[in-house]
Amino acid sequence: MTYPEDLRSLVDAELERLSFSAAPATESLEEAMRYSLLAGGKRVRPVLALATARALGTEPERFVPVACAIELIHTYSLIHDDLPAMDDDDLRRGAPTSHVKYGEDVAILAGDGLFAEAVRIFCEQPGEPARVLAALRELAGATGVDGMVGGQFVDVAGGAADAKSLRALHGLKTGRLIAASVGVVLELEGVAEPETIPYRQFASEVGVLFQIVDDILDVTESDERLGKPRGSDERHGRLTYVSLFGLERARELAADSHAKATEALAGADGQTEDLKRIADYIFTRNE
Amino acid sequence: MTYPEDLRSLVDAELERLSFSAAPATESLEEAMRYSLLAGGKRVRPVLALATARALGTEPERFVPVACAIELIHTYSLIHDDLPAMDDDDLRRGAPTSHVKYGEDVAILAGDGLFAEAVRIFCEQPGEPARVLAALRELAGATGVDGMVGGQFVDVAGGAADAKSLRALHGLKTGRLIAASVGVVLELEGVAEPETIPYRQFASEVGVLFQIVDDILDVTESDERLGKPRGSDERHGRLTYVSLFGLERARELAADSHAKATEALAGADGQTEDLKRIADYIFTRNE
Repeated sequence: MTYPEDLRSLVDAELERLSFSAAPATESLEEAMRYSLLAGGKRVRPVLALATARALGTEPERFVPVACAIELIHTYSLIHDDLPAMDDDDLRRGAPTSHVKYGEDVAILAGDGLFAEAVRIFCEQPGEPARVLAALRELAGATGVDGMVGGQFVDVAGGAADAKSLRALHGLKTGRLIAASVGVVLELEGVAEPETIPYRQFASEVGVLFQIVDDILDVTESDERLGKPRGSDERHGRLTYVSLFGLERARELAADSHAKATEALAGADGQTEDLKRIADYIFTRNE
Repeated sequence: MTYPEDLRSLVDAELERLSFSAAPATESLEEAMRYSLLAGGKRVRPVLALATARALGTEPERFVPVACAIELIHTYSLIHDDLPAMDDDDLRRGAPTSHVKYGEDVAILAGDGLFAEAVRIFCEQPGEPARVLAALRELAGATGVDGMVGGQFVDVAGGAADAKSLRALHGLKTGRLIAASVGVVLELEGVAEPETIPYRQFASEVGVLFQIVDDILDVTESDERLGKPRGSDERHGRLTYVSLFGLERARELAADSHAKATEALAGADGQTEDLKRIADYIFTRNE
């Protein structure tokens, strides 16, 4: 099991290269945006996008712009979720969150700015315009009310009440953006059903897997490894896969989800090794 | 002088019709989004877009999706600007602001959701995909660090220090989105230079005019007419066209700006009456 580090390097190099500000007056805003954007991490979403390109037999390099756009959107969501009015988290990956470091006003605007720049960068993706537009439409849908933002709303509005609503909440909050990371590349490559089906099944299952493992890590990992206070879900009174099913059963559910993701890939007609490696990493990750 | 109410009606009818939420769990988020979106107003930005279409000899009806997308972005910016961490305004158009009515968390997410849905709706604009993409790229640029979000950052980071930086601040914060309201339709219609030049000059000048009049109204209008506490610029310690130049000179600057906008239109090859009416309205408005 090796994570596709070459794809992560492509993403990291481009994120480092990105520049948002043309004027001295907005340089500090750019600094705040880069602070969160370059805080590290495995870049699961953009790496999924590039691994999908590779599976389809295309050079991953071609899709670096959309991959980075997705990471900008993910980063914006983390900044806004951490705000005092939301989850009120002071630490992320062991470092002060955006509002702790730059103030709430700048943190809100850093998130807003990342979102806008993500859309701009996406529009600059080379390729057939109709496909770029269809892909961006999928990403915007995954980001909006029937996706990431809607999921965060359900979370702050009281969270899930049972297994079904927990899965629905995370399907919106985490699942749709992860699924779109695979989906936008399918759109950009003009892949149609039924060829898309195994990829979309895989992506959907990986989203579920990601969340179950997240819930497990929140109770099993030390603060230091986790980079944030352990048990923050419990502190927020949130229903999780662990609080709902217990640690043992949650681990079984993760294994089940990982198996389903792998099975889905087996039905895909492509070089899916890197996608498999990402699922393996998500299953076994400890940060 | 009559404002193009028929174009405003097109916008209002479509905004009323828009639906964002597919699931019961996110209906309250949609409610918060609609609360701000349907709070009234002259819909200057989308009406500018539709009036540009008319000037170019195209049915305004065709561009209702992008016009509404622009209004969603404008509304999202108002919600975020009003937040306690930003301008901390409790009233807008005489009604409680989003965070006062729904709480800060929901207000942040209502803004985020409006932005995402705006992008989705824009992607659904019928037309040549390459043009839709170019138009969306212009809008995203006008919304981001080198536009609306950047302008708001400069404002919260201390505002303007002199006439030059005041104009630059408003050029980002207000001007670029107003300019893009005209610009996206030029892009969608595939209009190229030099035909675009008078339209873009007009749009740029209308942005300046809008802000000067805004600053004048902040000190001359009663709280009731303004729909928010009078003198809020002064309360925020902001440099304005009035504090910088005095009321008399600010009025001259507005008249000057209005004249320049009208002159620019005279050079346009099209049915520009409605664009002229919008400039007249902005110049003489009292709310």
